[in-house]
Amino acid sequence: MDEYDVETVADPDLTDPVLVEGLPGVGHVGKLAAEHLLEELESELVRKVYSTHFPPQVSIDEGRAELAAAEFYAVTPEDGRDMLVLSGNHQAQDTEGHYGLTDTFLDVADEFGVEEVFALGGVPTGELIEEYDVLGATTTDEFAETLTDAGVEFRDDEPAGGIVGVSGLLLGLGKRRGFPAACLMGETSGYLVDPKSAQAVLEVLQTVVGFEVDFATLEERADEMEEVVRKIQEMEQQNAPSPSDEDLRYIG
Amino acid sequence: MDEYDVETVADPDLTDPVLVEGLPGVGHVGKLAAEHLLEELESELVRKVYSTHFPPQVSIDEGRAELAAAEFYAVTPEDGRDMLVLSGNHQAQDTEGHYGLTDTFLDVADEFGVEEVFALGGVPTGELIEEYDVLGATTTDEFAETLTDAGVEFRDDEPAGGIVGVSGLLLGLGKRRGFPAACLMGETSGYLVDPKSAQAVLEVLQTVVGFEVDFATLEERADEMEEVVRKIQEMEQQNAPSPSDEDLRYIG
Amino acid sequence: MDEYDVETVADPDLTDPVLVEGLPGVGHVGKLAAEHLLEELESELVRKVYSTHFPPQVSIDEGRAELAAAEFYAVTPEDGRDMLVLSGNHQAQDTEGHYGLTDTFLDVADEFGVEEVFALGGVPTGELIEEYDVLGATTTDEFAETLTDAGVEFRDDEPAGGIVGVSGLLLGLGKRRGFPAACLMGETSGYLVDPKSAQAVLEVLQTVVGFEVDFATLEERADEMEEVVRKIQEMEQQNAPSPSDEDLRYIG
Amino acid sequence: MDEYDVETVADPDLTDPVLVEGLPGVGHVGKLAAEHLLEELESELVRKVYSTHFPPQVSIDEGRAELAAAEFYAVTPEDGRDMLVLSGNHQAQDTEGHYGLTDTFLDVADEFGVEEVFALGGVPTGELIEEYDVLGATTTDEFAETLTDAGVEFRDDEPAGGIVGVSGLLLGLGKRRGFPAACLMGETSGYLVDPKSAQAVLEVLQTVVGFEVDFATLEERADEMEEVVRKIQEMEQQNAPSPSDEDLRYIG
Repeated sequence: MDEYDVETVADPDLTDPVLVEGLPGVGHVGKLAAEHLLEELESELVRKVYSTHFPPQVSIDEGRAELAAAEFYAVTPEDGRDMLVLSGNHQAQDTEGHYGLTDTFLDVADEFGVEEVFALGGVPTGELIEEYDVLGATTTDEFAETLTDAGVEFRDDEPAGGIVGVSGLLLGLGKRRGFPAACLMGETSGYLVDPKSAQAVLEVLQTVVGFEVDFATLEERADEMEEVVRKIQEMEQQNAPSPSDEDLRYIG
Repeated sequence: MDEYDVETVADPDLTDPVLVEGLPGVGHVGKLAAEHLLEELESELVRKVYSTHFPPQVSIDEGRAELAAAEFYAVTPEDGRDMLVLSGNHQAQDTEGHYGLTDTFLDVADEFGVEEVFALGGVPTGELIEEYDVLGATTTDEFAETLTDAGVEFRDDEPAGGIVGVSGLLLGLGKRRGFPAACLMGETSGYLVDPKSAQAVLEVLQTVVGFEVDFATLEERADEMEEVVRKIQEMEQQNAPSPSDEDLRYIG
Repeated sequence: MDEYDVETVADPDLTDPVLVEGLPGVGHVGKLAAEHLLEELESELVRKVYSTHFPPQVSIDEGRAELAAAEFYAVTPEDGRDMLVLSGNHQAQDTEGHYGLTDTFLDVADEFGVEEVFALGGVPTGELIEEYDVLGATTTDEFAETLTDAGVEFRDDEPAGGIVGVSGLLLGLGKRRGFPAACLMGETSGYLVDPKSAQAVLEVLQTVVGFEVDFATLEERADEMEEVVRKIQEMEQQNAPSPSDEDLRYIG
Repeated sequence: MDEYDVETVADPDLTDPVLVEGLPGVGHVGKLAAEHLLEELESELVRKVYSTHFPPQVSIDEGRAELAAAEFYAVTPEDGRDMLVLSGNHQAQDTEGHYGLTDTFLDVADEFGVEEVFALGGVPTGELIEEYDVLGATTTDEFAETLTDAGVEFRDDEPAGGIVGVSGLLLGLGKRRGFPAACLMGETSGYLVDPKSAQAVLEVLQTVVGFEVDFATLEERADEMEEVVRKIQEMEQQNAPSPSDEDLRYIG
């Protein structure tokens, strides 16, 4: 197997598509958002990307094995621009792999004529969120203006630690290769899988890209998570030993 | 030395053989099963695979040094199909090595005309096992049917974490290269070397591949392990400080 | 992206320049010193070096993303020799990357006709410093004499652990490639960002290379750090639980 | 710099030399032994081996920087066979580097016409040693006989964990490349630098290779270590808190 191996599953024509990336990360915000898009809108699997930098692992679904991969889906909604949605269960296992996979993802974006890149993710605040702001970072001033108009906040030196992994490199390598790219980061506690943060990110994306999706299933999932939080808070009030931050991380 | 280095020791003709892999893993189930095959049936060492991804190490046997390697044996039982059995003491030390070694193993399988791949292993349950079920995962529906008929269980999303290492990749890469492949996973506590689980796996393999082996030595070994467990339980009842899970891991 | 990728931003002619390296390290002494040079003297960004051995990360400045990189600046002061100043926020993430990046940095030095290399850094003493000595290491006896005249101390077998990372390799690889190279190491506690140590190092560099800079902003920063130390000492005297060494590390 | 970079310093003719390796390891037995040979017999530096798999580091000796390297010395004693002695302060930092460096070392051995390889090291027993046995492992039966005659012990399955690092691979790769190779392992507690174990190993080597060295400096060093041990035992008897094993490790 090659270090980076792109399998062509289908080859539809897309018109001036945007790339929407949602791989696993803080609060699983990006992944939840990308998966919600794929559930709510008609989509077609077009590429699978295998790599020796992914975990040496197969996932099992009803007894059938699937090699670790990232997947590209073509989404052509009635309203709004065509989308190439990048989703999956894995990040690269090492530094070199992050760079090489992101370059491979941008090669696929090139093939489909992608004009703008949106990396979706979460930004951890360390506390439970009341109002879900979406923080932005871009490679161009123009892109920043469009996003500001859509309600995205840009703050000096935030996130303080920069953006790590594929989302960050889609901006860093994207800029060097001439893709206007933006990262949309939903605020999230960082302790829980956060469907509300994913919804906040998707609402921005809707405005900017022009599609419309129903949020009912995401809201249901959010209600379930709130139930979890409520129970934890009750336990705390009863002076029962509370689960540690570590235990809370990514309950869902 | 090359990154992956296959040494030809012998080159017998095999008729439509199956590959049986048993490298170290959970409860040493796969390794015990493969070694039992090699002890009970006539076998011939045919290939040694060295790799810079194996530990930088020699083992010492009666003062003679042997470089870390995986070994292929040809097994041609009177009843049943020919087998190519892959055994050894090491897994790759890094992600890339898992992919590269599995590809190299499949190259050897190709050379011998292997038609089906069986990866043997254990699946940890976290508790002592009463009845040893064998869990399956495959790359084709046909293979799954054959295995179901032989008593293998297929469960939705089990094992939950997928299958990691060479066993998993034999399915993942095997599928991409056109080998029908299956993983047979004996249930095991995960705390002890588990000869009973190895026997359960071999009984399925016997049915599907058609050979017959005696299980007396494996049963003896199982009795010894049960003695160990009994002593641990006694210690617990006497309120003596019991060995931790960590201590129990792979006693054998 | 290539493993090491040098982007040309500008290509001014420099006359017999010296290379001055100040990447992150002990007490951030080298980085503070290099950045102070760039603030006080006129400078021009000439090269950016990207690498798959840098963290897979972008930094965010007012909402704009910048890929992890090291930067070379041309500095042509009125007094003294021309300088090529190497600064940045990252070290390589692995052993191979340290070697490869240092080689790449020396390639850039070659292009600009660099004649001598100065690696700036700190050497940890484990205690608060009264008088800031500067310790030296070089690749040639001549260079050592010049530095001794400028007040640099050379001690047998110090620093005991040698010099690690780019600073060390600039000497080790520089020597092999024929660059006279020196490391100037300001003594520092190792617990705090240390502007005074950076000033001590720059004062030596001033004497040897011939430029002059104002130290007012570095002194201000030092005063702020002293205020931090004073507060910590007060806390200790009041028997309040004092911050651990770990907490003190790189406060600034 | 190349991944493995051999610098030729001198090129004397050696007659049927043996390779004697003593890199850092358990109790520094091999390193002490090799360094003692170089101190007691006339020797000439002939090769330096640099590698991107060594730590990214220079050592400092009287203010002069030396890049991490392994060194080969030619030793031509009046009595006995010529020797090529491999010494240094570093082991490879990763699995691949252990294999690659060992291969590079064997290339140098090839160039000098080496006929037999001796890897020197220690084998940890976990307790203070009264009588210093030397344990052996070889690649050929002939070699084993010679060593047995010289008082070396060969035990079934000892050392239990095999031999790791360059010493192990000199046997493993040496065997594949046709070098008769042996590892001489002095028993040592594993807690302290052990000059007595180094002497035991050298006494065997003297017998087999035929040279003679004085052990006075090694005995002095051993006396110093015994003084250290005595003080530690006194401290224990006075119920003073004793240094942990970790503290004792490689005192010297």
